[in-house]
Parts: sequence; C-alpha cells; structure tokens
Amino acid sequence: MRLETPLTPSRIPVAVLGATGAVGQRFLERLARHPRFEIAAVAASDRSAGKTYGEACAWRLPEAPPAGLSEMVVRRAEPDLPGVIVFSALDSETARSVEPRFAQAGYRVFSNAAAHRMEPDVPLLVPEINAGHIELLQTQRRRRGWRGTLVTNPNCSATQLALALAPLERAFGIERAFVTTMQAVSGAGYPGIASLDALGNIVPEIPGEAEKIESETLRILGRLDSGAVVPAEFPVSAQTYRVPVENGHTHSVSVLLSRKAAAADLIDAWRGFRGPDVEGLHSAPERPVEYVEERHAPQPRRHAGRRDGMVTWVGGLRPCAVLDWKFTVVADNTVRGAAGASLLNAEFLVRREALESAGRER
Amino acid sequence: MRLETPLTPSRIPVAVLGATGAVGQRFLERLARHPRFEIAAVAASDRSAGKTYGEACAWRLPEAPPAGLSEMVVRRAEPDLPGVIVFSALDSETARSVEPRFAQAGYRVFSNAAAHRMEPDVPLLVPEINAGHIELLQTQRRRRGWRGTLVTNPNCSATQLALALAPLERAFGIERAFVTTMQAVSGAGYPGIASLDALGNIVPEIPGEAEKIESETLRILGRLDSGAVVPAEFPVSAQTYRVPVENGHTHSVSVLLSRKAAAADLIDAWRGFRGPDVEGLHSAPERPVEYVEERHAPQPRRHAGRRDGMVTWVGGLRPCAVLDWKFTVVADNTVRGAAGASLLNAEFLVRREALESAGRER
Amino acid sequence: MRLETPLTPSRIPVAVLGATGAVGQRFLERLARHPRFEIAAVAASDRSAGKTYGEACAWRLPEAPPAGLSEMVVRRAEPDLPGVIVFSALDSETARSVEPRFAQAGYRVFSNAAAHRMEPDVPLLVPEINAGHIELLQTQRRRRGWRGTLVTNPNCSATQLALALAPLERAFGIERAFVTTMQAVSGAGYPGIASLDALGNIVPEIPGEAEKIESETLRILGRLDSGAVVPAEFPVSAQTYRVPVENGHTHSVSVLLSRKAAAADLIDAWRGFRGPDVEGLHSAPERPVEYVEERHAPQPRRHAGRRDGMVTWVGGLRPCAVLDWKFTVVADNTVRGAAGASLLNAEFLVRREALESAGRER
Amino acid sequence: MRLETPLTPSRIPVAVLGATGAVGQRFLERLARHPRFEIAAVAASDRSAGKTYGEACAWRLPEAPPAGLSEMVVRRAEPDLPGVIVFSALDSETARSVEPRFAQAGYRVFSNAAAHRMEPDVPLLVPEINAGHIELLQTQRRRRGWRGTLVTNPNCSATQLALALAPLERAFGIERAFVTTMQAVSGAGYPGIASLDALGNIVPEIPGEAEKIESETLRILGRLDSGAVVPAEFPVSAQTYRVPVENGHTHSVSVLLSRKAAAADLIDAWRGFRGPDVEGLHSAPERPVEYVEERHAPQPRRHAGRRDGMVTWVGGLRPCAVLDWKFTVVADNTVRGAAGASLLNAEFLVRREALESAGRER
Repeated sequence: MRLETPLTPSRIPVAVLGATGAVGQRFLERLARHPRFEIAAVAASDRSAGKTYGEACAWRLPEAPPAGLSEMVVRRAEPDLPGVIVFSALDSETARSVEPRFAQAGYRVFSNAAAHRMEPDVPLLVPEINAGHIELLQTQRRRRGWRGTLVTNPNCSATQLALALAPLERAFGIERAFVTTMQAVSGAGYPGIASLDALGNIVPEIPGEAEKIESETLRILGRLDSGAVVPAEFPVSAQTYRVPVENGHTHSVSVLLSRKAAAADLIDAWRGFRGPDVEGLHSAPERPVEYVEERHAPQPRRHAGRRDGMVTWVGGLRPCAVLDWKFTVVADNTVRGAAGASLLNAEFLVRREALESAGRER
Repeated sequence: MRLETPLTPSRIPVAVLGATGAVGQRFLERLARHPRFEIAAVAASDRSAGKTYGEACAWRLPEAPPAGLSEMVVRRAEPDLPGVIVFSALDSETARSVEPRFAQAGYRVFSNAAAHRMEPDVPLLVPEINAGHIELLQTQRRRRGWRGTLVTNPNCSATQLALALAPLERAFGIERAFVTTMQAVSGAGYPGIASLDALGNIVPEIPGEAEKIESETLRILGRLDSGAVVPAEFPVSAQTYRVPVENGHTHSVSVLLSRKAAAADLIDAWRGFRGPDVEGLHSAPERPVEYVEERHAPQPRRHAGRRDGMVTWVGGLRPCAVLDWKFTVVADNTVRGAAGASLLNAEFLVRREALESAGRER
Repeated sequence: MRLETPLTPSRIPVAVLGATGAVGQRFLERLARHPRFEIAAVAASDRSAGKTYGEACAWRLPEAPPAGLSEMVVRRAEPDLPGVIVFSALDSETARSVEPRFAQAGYRVFSNAAAHRMEPDVPLLVPEINAGHIELLQTQRRRRGWRGTLVTNPNCSATQLALALAPLERAFGIERAFVTTMQAVSGAGYPGIASLDALGNIVPEIPGEAEKIESETLRILGRLDSGAVVPAEFPVSAQTYRVPVENGHTHSVSVLLSRKAAAADLIDAWRGFRGPDVEGLHSAPERPVEYVEERHAPQPRRHAGRRDGMVTWVGGLRPCAVLDWKFTVVADNTVRGAAGASLLNAEFLVRREALESAGRER
Repeated sequence: MRLETPLTPSRIPVAVLGATGAVGQRFLERLARHPRFEIAAVAASDRSAGKTYGEACAWRLPEAPPAGLSEMVVRRAEPDLPGVIVFSALDSETARSVEPRFAQAGYRVFSNAAAHRMEPDVPLLVPEINAGHIELLQTQRRRRGWRGTLVTNPNCSATQLALALAPLERAFGIERAFVTTMQAVSGAGYPGIASLDALGNIVPEIPGEAEKIESETLRILGRLDSGAVVPAEFPVSAQTYRVPVENGHTHSVSVLLSRKAAAADLIDAWRGFRGPDVEGLHSAPERPVEYVEERHAPQPRRHAGRRDGMVTWVGGLRPCAVLDWKFTVVADNTVRGAAGASLLNAEFLVRREALESAGRER
C-alpha cells in the first residue's frame, strides 16, 4: 500500500466493502502487505462514509493498523469506487443487494458473505479443491448480463472441513462425515458474543452455522457437470459450539471412507495434497494441509496463525469405533476461513485471466 | 460436621483419602453440610500427614472451607482411621494399592479413582442406572476374602454420557454413539493443566480419557448376568478436548437408535427417567436428567452447578444426518462426575443395608 | 416467593424495575429466597411489557431462575405496580425520570442506578458505614414533596472501597487513598463488553467509573451536618480496568493514614468493624469486612461469592513505599456492589420504620 | 539460522542456555530470524542433554519452531559450547552457579535471570536508558578476573516501568512512583501458574516480584559514579497481580514529578525519547516508547506484540488526585521484558566493541 504516493502502475487497485468490521480489518491488514494489490478505496455504511478510516473505525486486531490507512476517507458502498477488484466483507443481508450492483457495473467481486454462496451460478471457491468451479462465471455472466463477476469463499468452518476432507475424498472416497466445531469468538465479528456468555463457558448452536457447514462443504467438494455444480453426496452432520478462544477454529471430525485405508495412507493423502492451480501465488501455502505428528495437536492458539494463517492443520488421527477414523482440524478462521481465502481467490482469478489473455495474444 | 463436639451418634463417621487434592476438597465441602455423614478423619500423603489440614492444604474451591476443618490433623492413608465409610479421592496409582488394604480391613470404600473400575467384581455404580450391579459385592467378598467392600463411580465424562444415554437405551435401544467432549480444567485436578496451555486454547486428547469413556459407559449400561456384568454392546466413539472452562463438562453427542423415535419421544424418555433405588436420598435429584428447551443450552457455566450439581442437563436435540439424533449434554464434573457420585453411592448402600438388616430382623 | 399462591400476609410485596437485565436478574434471584420480601411485580421496558418474564428475558445467571418467575407477566415501569417497595435496576438514564415518579407516588424506591446518587437530599447508603445518612429522607420529602422515598446504593467499586476504608478512617484517619480496580465483566451488564475485547486482555478506563469511585467514596464516608452530607476530605485517586473475570472486582489499594499504625492494628480495625444498625438483618453478614491471612488472597473467583456475596474481603497488607500501607480488596460486584446492597438498605429501612412506629405507639 | 550448512562467516555464533523453557523458546524464535546471530548450540538441563531439541522440548509458542532446530542436539550447560555469545534463559538458581562459569571461561553472557542483576559490578542494562552502565564491565573483569563478561537485563515489569519513567525522570524529575501490575501468565514460565488459579481469576502477589520492580527500576535509572551505580532515589511502590492474559503485562502507574508539567509535556517526553546508543540496531525500535492517544489503550492483547514486541506502550494519561499523573503502560513481557531485551543488549555490546576495535586500529 502506498497511500501517500500515486498508485503504483504495476499494482492492481482494490476496494474493500465493509472495511470497518472485523473481517474488513483483516482484509486491510493483509492487503497492506500484499505484493500485487493496492488499497485504492475503503467503503462502509452510510454512518461511516465521509469520515476518515481512523475516525470511523476502532481498530481491533493485534497487528497495528497499516500506515496511511487511518487518513483514507471512507466511501459509501456504491459502484463508483476506484478499484478494479472489490473485496466484500459485508454482512450477508447488505451483501445480498450491494454485491450484485458492483458485479453488474463491471467489478470483479470477491465476497466473504454468505448471501450468494449457494446460488447455482456463483462459484463457491476453494481453489486448491475446486478451481474448475470458476467456469460457473460463464453461466453467471450469460444469465445475469453482468459486466463483472461474483466469486464467493465459503463459511470459515466449511472451508477448513472441506480442506481436511478433500484429500480423503480424492484418495478413498467418503461415505459419511461427522463434525463437532469449537469456534473462536473472532468468528462472530464485533461486538459479536458478549463476554458474559463467552468467558469460562461453551455456548451450543451457532445460529445457521451447522446448516452452512453441511451444505457448503458438499458444494465445495462437488463436481462441475454441464455448467453446474453437482454437490458431493455423502451425509455431513455438524454440531457447533462457541468456545472462549480468541482466534482459530477447532474441529473434532469423524469419517467413514469408501475404501478402507491405513492411518499412514490418510496422512500421506493430507501431506501429498497440493493446489496446483494456486501454486506460487502469494497467499497459497506450499502445502494447504499439514498433518502434525505430536500429541495434543493441533491447537488453535498454537497452530492457527502459523504459515501466515493459510494452512489447515490436521492431527490426532485415531480409529473411530462408529465410523472409520477420527481426527482434529484447526485453521485460522479470519484468514484461511475469511479474508485470506478471498485474497487467494482473487490472486487465482487474476493470474488465470492474465494467462488466458496471453494465450489469446499468442 | 461437628468437629469441635463429640461425634454425633446419629451420624455415620466417614474418612476421606486424598483429602487435600481437588476432588478431596469437593468431598469435604459436601460432607460438611451432609445430613447423615460426619467427617471423622482426613488422610493424605505422607508429606501432609501430621500437619493440620489448614497447613497441609491450599483450599481452592470458590466455597469457603468448612468450619473446623483446618484444625483437623491429617493422617496417613492407613486402615486405622476412625471412619466406617471411606471416600477415596486418591490418584489412580495410589488407589491401586491403598484401597484394597482398606476393603480388606473391613472398611466400605467408595472410590472416585480409576484403578479398580473395570475389575469384574467391582461395581461401577451409577445407581439411577445400574443399582443392581451392587450384587457384585457378593462375588467381591467371596473371591477376595475382604471384610469390607469397594464400590467405584465412573469417570466424570462416562457418568454424564451414561446418564444421557440410559433413558434412550431403555426406551429405544442404542446402536451407536459418538461423543466429542469439551472438558473443564477442574477435571484435571490441581495443578493440572498449565494456564499457558489452557487460556484461549483447546487442547486435544486428554490422556486415557477416550478409552475410559468408551469402556466405562458400556459397563455402566451393562446388565448383570450370573454374578457378572455383561457390558452393553453398541460401539461408542469418543474424542476428548480440554477447554478453558473452570467447571462443567460439555458433550456433543450423536446416537443411532434401535427403534426410530420422534424428538418428543426422546425428550419424554429423558424427563421420565427416574432413579427409584435412590429416591429420597440426600444427593439424589428428583430427576437425574433434565431436558432444557431453550436454545443455546445447556451451558457449563450456567447449568452445571444448578440443583447442587447432581443433574445431567440435555438440550439442543436435532436430527443427525449421519446417525439419528444429536444433542448436547452438560454436567458438573466435580460433583455428579466425582465427589457427589461417590456420596450418592454411599447413601444408596447405607440405606440398602439398613433395609436388609431391618428385613432380617422382621 | 409464592407466585402461585396469594401473597403472604407476613411478607412485604416488592416490585423490581429493570427486571430483565443483569442486575435485575440478581435482584430476583435473591428476592426469591428472601424471608421477608415477596416478588409482587416485575417491570421492564415497553418492549418487554406484556410478555411473560420467561418470554421477555434470557436468564443468564449460573443459578437457576426462581420457580414461578417465568410465568409472571412483565409490566411497564409505571407507578401502578402492586408493590410497596420498589427495587430499581434501571440504567441511569431511565432511572433519572422513572424513579422520581415512583417516589412521588408514594413508593419507597431502593435504587442501584447512578442517576440520583450525588444529589444532596438522596442518601447514598452503606448502612454499616453511614446509617445516619438516612436522615436525608426528611429533607428529601420536605424539599420534593414526595409521598415516598428514594434511597440509593453506591457504584460497586465505590462500595467495596468504602467498606475497606471505613474501618481505617474511623480508627486512624485517612490522608490519601489510591486504588487501581480490576473489574469483572459482570459489572458491565449484558451484553456489556464484547468477548473480543475481554478474552485474554485488559481494557483500561471504564467510562465514568473513576469519577464515580472518587466522588461516591467520599460521600459515603462523609458526615451528616445540618441535614446535609459533608464528604470526607482526603484525595482519592482511581484507575479502572476491565479484566477477563466473570464476577468479583479486585482492588489494589494504597493509603496514607493520619495516625501511624502497625499492620496488626489495621487488621484489628477491619476485623472489629461491625454494622450495628444492620445487625441481624437477613442480608447483613456478621462481619462486613474480613481480613484473610493466607498469601495470594483474596481472589475474585475464590472469595467474592462466599458468605452469600455480602462480605468485603481484604488481604495482602504490606507497607507501601509511597503512602503507608497497601492491600487487596475483593467483593462480589453484583451482590455487595449492587442487588445485595439495595436489599440490605431496604431491610434496614423497614426495620427502622417498624421500630419508630412501635416507639410512637408506646 | 543455517543449521544444515556450515556456519556463516559473517554471522556471530551464539548459544542459548535453558533453551527448552518458555524464555529459551522465545530466544530461539527470535535468533532464528536474526540478521547477525546464528544459533550454534542449545543447552539445557542434564535431563535434556543428548536428546535432539525436538525430543527434549515441547514447543509452546504460537509461532512455529524454527526450521532445523528440532534436529539440533541439546548439550549440557558447560562452557565448552561452540558459541561466542551466550544467552541465558536459566532459572535464577541455576544461573547463580552456571553463568559465572561461562563468564570465567571467556564467554560474553547475556542473562535474563535475576541471579546477578543487583550485584554492584554487573550491568543491569536497558541501553536506551543506561548504556553507560556497560562501563561496569571493567570493574567486573578486574574484580572477578573473568576473561568474559556478564550483562543482565531486568525483570520484565521493571523493564517496562523503567522505560515509561525514564523520559519523565529526565525531563521533569520523579519524586514518587506507584505501580499496580497486571501480569500475563507467560511471565511465569511453563508450567507456571495452574489454569485452575488463572482462569477467570486474579491472583495477588507474584512472589518476589514487587521487590524486584522496586529495586531494579531504581538501579536501571541510576547514574554511574566512580565505577558504581548510584540508584535513583525516589520511592517506588509496587503491587503485583497475575491476570488471565496470555502475553503482555499491563501497569497502572501514578507519579509525582519534581517539576510540574502539562499533559502535553509528558507526551512529548515519551515521544521524544530515543535510544541513541542502540539506534539502527536490529532489535531497537525507532521509538522505544509510544504514547497512544485513543481511549481504552494500550491493551496487552492488542498492543504488546506490535513493532515486533520491542516497544513500551503508554496511554490514558490523566491527572492523579494523590500524586501528579497516572497512566497505563503495556509491553511484551517475553520480548521487551526478556528475550528481546537480552538480544538488544548483545547487539549493543557487539557494535560497541567493533567501534572500539576500529578506533584502536585507527
């Protein structure tokens, strides 16, 4: 970010919608040190518009706010922003009406909101798993007549569950999956859950969360057929809990595989999993999924933030008396499960378009 | 407890082994306000023996230490204690050698330790569920030649799981059960888990805990056949996690029933569940299992301690896409899962013996 | 509370304003097991009025909600309530207009709100310290023409500071006092402070709190002169912090005394402190202030709730290199610092009026 | 760190004593990304010696362990280590005997241990404040006949207090200072404080801490006179508390100044404070002390880790009714208060020696 200087020619200007919220802050923190993107505009609700970002926003991340950001003037979330790429950290209700307006007006929108994730022509993209789903954009443009595009990333818990399951699905097939989530308070945004509820307590049933996990995971793992996503077909059952952890979601997972496999095979599947379509991209870790051998691992406070928060950590693989195998999955819900996921999606699409464009020129 | 006055004739003197530890303190706190039992002796390791309880012990419960307790002299855990009933809060390794010495010497021992729980002639008693298992004491006396008896209560998590499953098992039969536990730090004793591990974190895999839950639950739910317990036969799979909660364990449970049933049937089963063999006893709640209707319930900090900590709380019943039903279970791990359970077992046995004795006299 | 039966003649009917909030719940929990008072009405905002208490209120205390309460219909906070005594758990802004309407209409109002605490004719009552301030009610009635009365109890932190200082002020005089508060999240009400702010964090400067502590403490310790309170005159300096503790405020205090005294003298002063004007009342502990000898005490989670939450705990007395002595003070902010204080004030006034009435008849 | 390759000529090999503990891990994490130092040896207790670091140590930092570290063989803490510079993260008792053996044998030892901090010929170095104290090394060498040197950094709380006070002391003089500390659990090492004590609780009186703060702060701020440190002479009074915060200490401070000053003057003093003797060094922040204007700041979870953990954050300046001014100070206790401080001291001494050496050659 070079807010004080003219925008850098080699960089792509981007705008962030919902810039003052918890996920918006995480977007900005990561964009400010991004090698290709450059913050050109920040937008928020009418209440914040016209103020400087410093006035409009109580910065709440442990990392310091990016230099120069606090002087930027917050704009309204209208499609007149100086940004070719738009990252949306809007709440779902606002996203429902605002994001299409941007896509209509020609912006490429990368959204963390739930509003459009399950629509048939909107990619729900985890590019290590389903890069091909980007083909839906053709349908999307055709059907909606948009000049721009809308790409979504999944719910935080669905993302890390899908990343832990994808290597098993590919190698062995999955018949059933059960997950109990222990989700950090950062996942509820700000102010989110009251401290009187969170401290020294476990709160069952995060509203709407189990449904998102169950449906989005199957859509992520689905295959593209005749321009539509056919969801994976095994049953997924989720129970969700809010736990007194600042950041990092923990999943207790159990799976039934289609083909029997030894523990070593599963670990090989996780460790061998790669995202060839995102290889070399700034936000793509070398290995999207890491299996940790040590006992009592992974842990949210110890593992979630490692590798810049983009790795999904798996550990504690043990036989399950009910299904086949059980294990623990940890990931950074605000990074891999939110802002980092959107950025990776944008990096992926930008490179893909550049390659296509180069291909056409040749 | 009337430590300053001569022991009360109408009360039964009791001794507590491992009296200075976390569970020992919970035993004493409850005994001090018990209508039938009276603390006659406290015993602990050789390091503490000879000191007053106040000197030997850093009291760590939120409740104040019982009046008079701190002046009692701590004794060695030798079978020369002025107590007819012995409550054991010993660690498992010490319990292995010490408890039989007391039983041998004629004491009735009620143990919270894991050491002898799975031995064929030792009752693993949750008297609302398996009061009949007390019959094992006949085998125990015969086989071991003890003048006293040894009765155990299960692991804290196994206790609350068994209490949530027993009504379903009776009403519908159970084919499979899956549980993910979120266990409070009080379950690890003192000093237990380091705060650097616990704060804002989830630690997977409590050592030995999954195995105890899986085996003890089936033994509790087992039936007595020819003087031996035949464990229940459905698979139980447990994943265990330590969470930053002071007290109260939370379980995410999923079950497959033998006979299909509606949600209302399950709730009726829980609410209709009674413990006729312990009815009216001091430590027995009117209803051992309570189903709470409100959403986001039960919660460990809000529900575990209600009804003097002896109720198992169930809530959030929802269909499960993998098995049949999923729900949340909360109980007080230091009370229903430890000291309170031992006390209830003792109350049950004392009344039973009194009735038998009265029967013989008649 | 006998909500299902006709009101008990021997009991005094009471109403609670702001009954659905955090302090309101604490009032109801304590009133339900009160020997003299009986809940006759619960009132809350217009949004809740007309609903049952169970519908209007998410009960958030660890203790179960009182039996029968959830069926009571919530009323508007209008002076047509069937209650002779009114407890106000209103927020300060609402209290400013509502409480006088009740006092005007003849109700005796006991308020936990800050709105009228510093008004010259309103007693800011901690009856162990300043029972005589109740004389202000004569001025109040005269000046305002009210048929009823308004009595307030202080801010939670001011209450426990005043109770720790009063014995020293009486015995030795105080020249200066410095306090740093570490305040539990329950003090902020519900939803209060966001968990993202509270978890693993310290938040400086509770809004308005330092000012309340500094001014209210001196008014509590003030003397009555010609129908007005002359505040104590030594400087009090407060720094306030919100800490991730569920309940129980902790103060780090340092004082300069007017007359030099030994540690044993201070401890004697605290231990010898009594509240003769509230002796024998239900909510009055035998000793309002307890000094604990053991090291690392008092602690909010271990001490605040003991003795039904009405004792102020002092410990860790050590010489101070800057003033004379420093020590730690802990009390239950929702009980001694809020609902319990109001109840004690009401008990005090009821008995006083009964005695006066008996005196007149004789 | 290039553990797999021959040691880099341009880098200075270093050894870490007490390498497996909490502070040792922090040393290694920072050394592994240090531009001038290179980990040549790790040493720990005899119990760990001979094992690989990965076997000997449960890594507990949120950051991943440095690549290559886990294969290094842990050595005994004997002065035969391939390291020119030795960082000591030993506990104080071990440090008492071990550190002098290394200094005797010619090593330059930079110690975080309390053992030798208050000895008259051992620099207690915070080089932004008292770089000149390094002159004590001449006395040290002469008196002890050591071929090497021993330099200590202060207690974590003393460090941040001294850094907050030094600018005021220089600009206005200080007459008195009062501090209440709210210290993170990471300051107690591992396993440190039990989670049953820490969770939702405040524990008064960290053993020995108040004494260290009171004495070390004055020694840090002392002036060198005839080869000895004359401590600053104003009274410092400290009360210490352990709080449920993972990392980052918070201080509530009040000071009386020698010359009256306005708030803006104090803020200017903090902001204008520089460490000219460490300017440009890797571990030296541009400004050692930052004053933050926003309310409710600084906070340990939000500020302590910023600027790589080496800045001391001050905020909330307000007039004090007892002394002159009060404010809040936050710093990273494991970095600025421990490992980072030792590293800065070493960087400072290395550059100083290089300059002296260059000066002699000229």
